[in-house]
This record gives sequence, structure tokens and C-alpha cells, in this order.
Amino acid sequence: MNTADKIPVSVLNRLPDYLHFVKYMSKAEYVSSAAVAKALNLGEVQVRKDLQMVSGAGKPKVGYVRTELVSHLEAALDIHTPVSAVLVGVGHLGKALLYHDGFAEFGINIVGAVDIEDKPLHGGRKVIPPSALNEFCHDNNVTIGIITVPESQAQIVADELVAAGVKAIWNFAPTVLKVPDDITVKNANLARELAVLAVTGVRG
Amino acid sequence: MNTADKIPVSVLNRLPDYLHFVKYMSKAEYVSSAAVAKALNLGEVQVRKDLQMVSGAGKPKVGYVRTELVSHLEAALDIHTPVSAVLVGVGHLGKALLYHDGFAEFGINIVGAVDIEDKPLHGGRKVIPPSALNEFCHDNNVTIGIITVPESQAQIVADELVAAGVKAIWNFAPTVLKVPDDITVKNANLARELAVLAVTGVRG
Repeated sequence: MNTADKIPVSVLNRLPDYLHFVKYMSKAEYVSSAAVAKALNLGEVQVRKDLQMVSGAGKPKVGYVRTELVSHLEAALDIHTPVSAVLVGVGHLGKALLYHDGFAEFGINIVGAVDIEDKPLHGGRKVIPPSALNEFCHDNNVTIGIITVPESQAQIVADELVAAGVKAIWNFAPTVLKVPDDITVKNANLARELAVLAVTGVRG
Repeated sequence: MNTADKIPVSVLNRLPDYLHFVKYMSKAEYVSSAAVAKALNLGEVQVRKDLQMVSGAGKPKVGYVRTELVSHLEAALDIHTPVSAVLVGVGHLGKALLYHDGFAEFGINIVGAVDIEDKPLHGGRKVIPPSALNEFCHDNNVTIGIITVPESQAQIVADELVAAGVKAIWNFAPTVLKVPDDITVKNANLARELAVLAVTGVRG
């Protein structure tokens, strides 16, 4: 089951938090939208609407059978369809993502790391040279590319990833990539995130 | 000048991108909202409204004097008020943020890194033990805390940061922090970002 087409992105953005809470943090048999809202510090009306979209109305008074809600959230995020990603640029940020242990929770695996230099990696993994990117992506059914190279290299890498068949790009370089319309790009610009936090939380 | 109070967060979120483009990428004397929209792959109407809020209407046909627009965007983000941050948890992600070179562009400096273990850092910086966090924050006028410890430690660290006087927290742990109402928290959950990209760009 894949309900992503029917669920707006604004709602999808909240589902991983709901799933993490009902799967790992709660041990109850039933979980209500009020309990989820309280735990995640969100509005109860919003949570109720979101969960209704994913899992129907729940039972009066008690809410959802927790294990069923877990299944429905997992289905909405389609986490049981394995997704393979390749990371390009093994600097500090690239290594931090390679060693991050949170992606497996959502069925995503960074199966390879590309760099112009061979660098030591934990767990016996090897750095792939850029010349082998295309073949690696096709051999390993890679559908996501993660760009952690400097700004000046990001567009070149994006072009190579698109040529290698990826469908989505997670871009950490502070640049706007030009890609074909059928490629989904998500920019993760750490400096700009922090700049907005500074002006809303400290400077403002 | 600080206009953050008047500018909605949805607009503030786009200002760092505008600033990066008009300050570093464009060399023209005048820059129009159409040019900014094209470069950043955004809608022209939205960019026009955003820039009008920050820098008035611009000149007919030519748009904004680029250097003036830079000044107005810098003022809206208040980047000339220096902000000091402390990072807690010197793992791979912590190091990646410590060595990230993009924060200075927005007047933000990570002045210290805290960990239970002393670890080697580039540039002669030293890891601060947790027992010295409070004094360090007060001595260095630290107003932002960055949490890169494991989930199980995040709330304890948040409490210590609040006690040490920070006003804003950038939380990379996959947990919802309980903090007083006057503390701004921004969650940066990498796994959930990638999970949403996977479902919208690959699985959907």
C-alpha cells in the first residue's frame, strides 16, 4: 500500500514523528490523538485530522489500537519498500550521514559513498571513485543521491546522479540545482536553518 | 534594525537564500525579483512580495540596487549582531557542524563544543567538559545550544542549556524536548527528512 499520493506533503512531514512515537516511545495497547499531540507538543485538532487520514477514525474514547496505527503509518510512509541511497562527498558532513543510525528506521540504506579520494570508512565499507558511480547506482538499484560536496561541485554531481538514474536528491550544498522536472530535490541547508533560528529565537 | 518581528517565519525561511544569491552569486548593479525567482527556482509573485516586505518596491523595470537589497536582507536577518552557539555532543554529526563553514556567513559562531570525552578538534579548539558548560555559556554570551547527543541524553542536555541561559536550541536528537515557553526549539531530524524525500520522490 502506498498512500503518499493522497496525503499532502504538509501531513507527510509529520508522519515520521508520529511513527517514531507510537512505535518506539509508547507501550500502551491503545493510543489517542490527544496522547500523540501531547507527547509531540502539537495541536490536538491537527493530529486528529492527520491520523484520520492515515488510519481512519479510531475507536470512540480509546483511540487507535497502537499496533494497527503503527502499521498504517508505516504503510503511508511505505517504509517496507527498501530504498538505496548513494552519498557523494565524504567530508565531515558526509561521514556524519554515513554513520547516522536513524535512516534504517525508515527503510533507507546508504549503500555507497563516492569521493575523489579513497578514505577510511568504518565497518569495512569502501569509498567508490566517481568513475564508478553510474555502474554502482545501476547495480545497486540506487534511487536517492545525497550531495555533500562543496557548492562549486554540486551541480556536476547532480548531473552525474541524474544520469545514473536516481529519482530524488538530498542536497546539502548551498546552491539551487538544475534538474529535470521528474527529479525531486530537497535542499538541506544547515547554515540557513541556523540563521532563521537565530533571528526568530535570539536576535528577534 | 531588526524586522524579524514584522516578517512571517514562512518569509524569513526564504531570506537566507535570497541573501546568498544577491550577495555572492549575482554581480549585476540591479537585480529584479524575476531574476531572483529564476535563479532560485521559485515563483515570481512570491519573490516579489517577499522582497517588497524587506526592501520596498524597487525601481520600475530594473528592480533593486543590488547592494541596497543586500543591506536590507542582512538587516532583516540581523546578521551583523554576532550570535554565539555552543554544541553538545562531539560525535560525527557534532564534528560536521563544528567544521561547517557556512554559519559565519550569517554572523553565527560555534564558540565551544562540550563532550564527556576529551576529543581532538581541528584548529586548536578544546572540548569543554559538561561540568564547565554553565560557566562557559555565561562567559561567552552563548545564546544558542546545538544538541548532537544521542536521544537518551537530549532532554538532560536541553535542561542544562536552558539553565545556562541559552534562548534557542537546535535539536538533532529524534525527541521532543520539554522546555520553558520562552525558549525556541528547532528540530533537525535528518532521518525524518530523508524518509519524507523517499516517499515523495521515490516510493510515491
